[in-house]
Amino acid sequence: MKYLLLAAAAASLASPVQAQEATEVPSPGEIAAAAPAKDWIAIPVSDLLVMDLAPDAKGKPRRVVIQLMPAPFSQGWIGNIRKLAAAHWWDGTSVNRVQDNYVAQWGDATEKKPLPEGLVTVPESEYSVPPHILVAHETRSPALAPSPHRPRGDAYAEFTGFVAGWPVAYDHQSEWPVHCYGMVGVGRNMSPDTGSGAELYAVIGHAPRHLDRNIALVGRVISGIEYLSSLPRGSGPLGFYEDEAERVGITSIRLASDLPAAEQPRFEYLSTDSDAFTNYADARANRRDPFFIRPAGGADICNIPVPIRPIAAK
Amino acid sequence: MKYLLLAAAAASLASPVQAQEATEVPSPGEIAAAAPAKDWIAIPVSDLLVMDLAPDAKGKPRRVVIQLMPAPFSQGWIGNIRKLAAAHWWDGTSVNRVQDNYVAQWGDATEKKPLPEGLVTVPESEYSVPPHILVAHETRSPALAPSPHRPRGDAYAEFTGFVAGWPVAYDHQSEWPVHCYGMVGVGRNMSPDTGSGAELYAVIGHAPRHLDRNIALVGRVISGIEYLSSLPRGSGPLGFYEDEAERVGITSIRLASDLPAAEQPRFEYLSTDSDAFTNYADARANRRDPFFIRPAGGADICNIPVPIRPIAAK
Repeated sequence: MKYLLLAAAAASLASPVQAQEATEVPSPGEIAAAAPAKDWIAIPVSDLLVMDLAPDAKGKPRRVVIQLMPAPFSQGWIGNIRKLAAAHWWDGTSVNRVQDNYVAQWGDATEKKPLPEGLVTVPESEYSVPPHILVAHETRSPALAPSPHRPRGDAYAEFTGFVAGWPVAYDHQSEWPVHCYGMVGVGRNMSPDTGSGAELYAVIGHAPRHLDRNIALVGRVISGIEYLSSLPRGSGPLGFYEDEAERVGITSIRLASDLPAAEQPRFEYLSTDSDAFTNYADARANRRDPFFIRPAGGADICNIPVPIRPIAAK
Repeated sequence: MKYLLLAAAAASLASPVQAQEATEVPSPGEIAAAAPAKDWIAIPVSDLLVMDLAPDAKGKPRRVVIQLMPAPFSQGWIGNIRKLAAAHWWDGTSVNRVQDNYVAQWGDATEKKPLPEGLVTVPESEYSVPPHILVAHETRSPALAPSPHRPRGDAYAEFTGFVAGWPVAYDHQSEWPVHCYGMVGVGRNMSPDTGSGAELYAVIGHAPRHLDRNIALVGRVISGIEYLSSLPRGSGPLGFYEDEAERVGITSIRLASDLPAAEQPRFEYLSTDSDAFTNYADARANRRDPFFIRPAGGADICNIPVPIRPIAAK
């Protein structure tokens, strides 16, 4: 089997070649998998949004799980999203736009469905927060600090790092979440409209970091991204489906905490404040596992996906 | 219509909102579209590889066009690829692996098909070339140079830029092509095996720049990437299809110059040595078109896709 490389989050090695040549040097995925249980933090079910798309052509279910961002990020829009889910507002809406190397976007294609009462209008100022906020006893990982021997940078911000399991960029004035693969944001019209949260998109291509601080990020897909990223691309402008029949129906979107307990998905993430994460990030930036001949000496913030995994049922 | 943003390569504005609020500031796509004809360089048909996948479930054809890299990059593997295409070696092979946010990979799933005679073994040293090579009278674009007021960088290399229409990274020792979305590379086993070129992959996710200089890049998909990026993801390790029936058949792969003249696809790219490209790259890094409220002040090399378009039939 000729292959390229380990999956980003692969916790085990499947290739006989790799098993044969395994050395003492673990891959990033192995480092994460070997982290002690105390380094894995359960994601509150009240922060999980469960989106069920209509079954595929073969009748296979398509469930997408989105983790909403914690405070202090984007809570105005996220409050709206909680209300929309509670009102079952998305049920019967659809994925209407899939643009290659960019986004999949969903909501009410007719744009006529009344929104529930009580949604707030959020100002642009909420696209970022004051810098150096500590969340849930976590601090930024030093893993991305440029080496004194070989300064490296980020093309979009003075600094990047991780806070409470989320990739962020920051400078001396503010801190903001970044548009990595799988991140979920709020569609909007022209500025200063910031969108309500009824129209959402997920990034399915190279990180469109130019959108940072120009549009609200509210979460990330942590399971089932392939049900969005492998949808047919729309042939209309911006990847909108030109034929209504191409739209992909949304059966329901619910907060996981509103599902029966037995049906609630459970996930945990590797604390970005842990030594294991620091080692994982370092290994992503300096691949020393057997496939590699030349470690890069750096990695961009979106090429260090935070390890997230289902919590095994007890 | 609530939308996010212009497509990277969108040459025209389709949204009524945008038309209404249009200003004097053109989008990157508009800048490229407005470039004079002299700035558009025809791609030799002998550098185009035409891959026809089996038609989709609805009988729709799926054609992928790959541009091979010019000298001095990767010519050993590219010579092999030309021989494999001339021998019709890929006909009847398949796409065997699709890993989300990573690659789609194709070749002989049995790994038993004899290779044509005359293929060469290429050394790892060919992963890069001496720095500052000038190709086809082009030079690097200054568009990515960090501003003296706000130094920005690349996480993987000292410098990045464009040579003859291709994104590259370089330092004082060498220069190498980079793993952006759509780039095509040569699958291999463990180092120092560099692969023959019979097993190829295309990047369908966030740029896996850690692969730079660890594996050979030979080209990029310039048309039809959606036929690879929207394929179902494989459920096996590394995204390999577990069931043979899931593999996507390859009807044929040919050099465009071996097709009948009337069937040869024709494409052109915006010279990366032109003022228009410099303006385009600057606009990608500093979005001033009406949707944006805060230009980023920078862009990573893979977020400045070189404009490529079909040449209109005469």
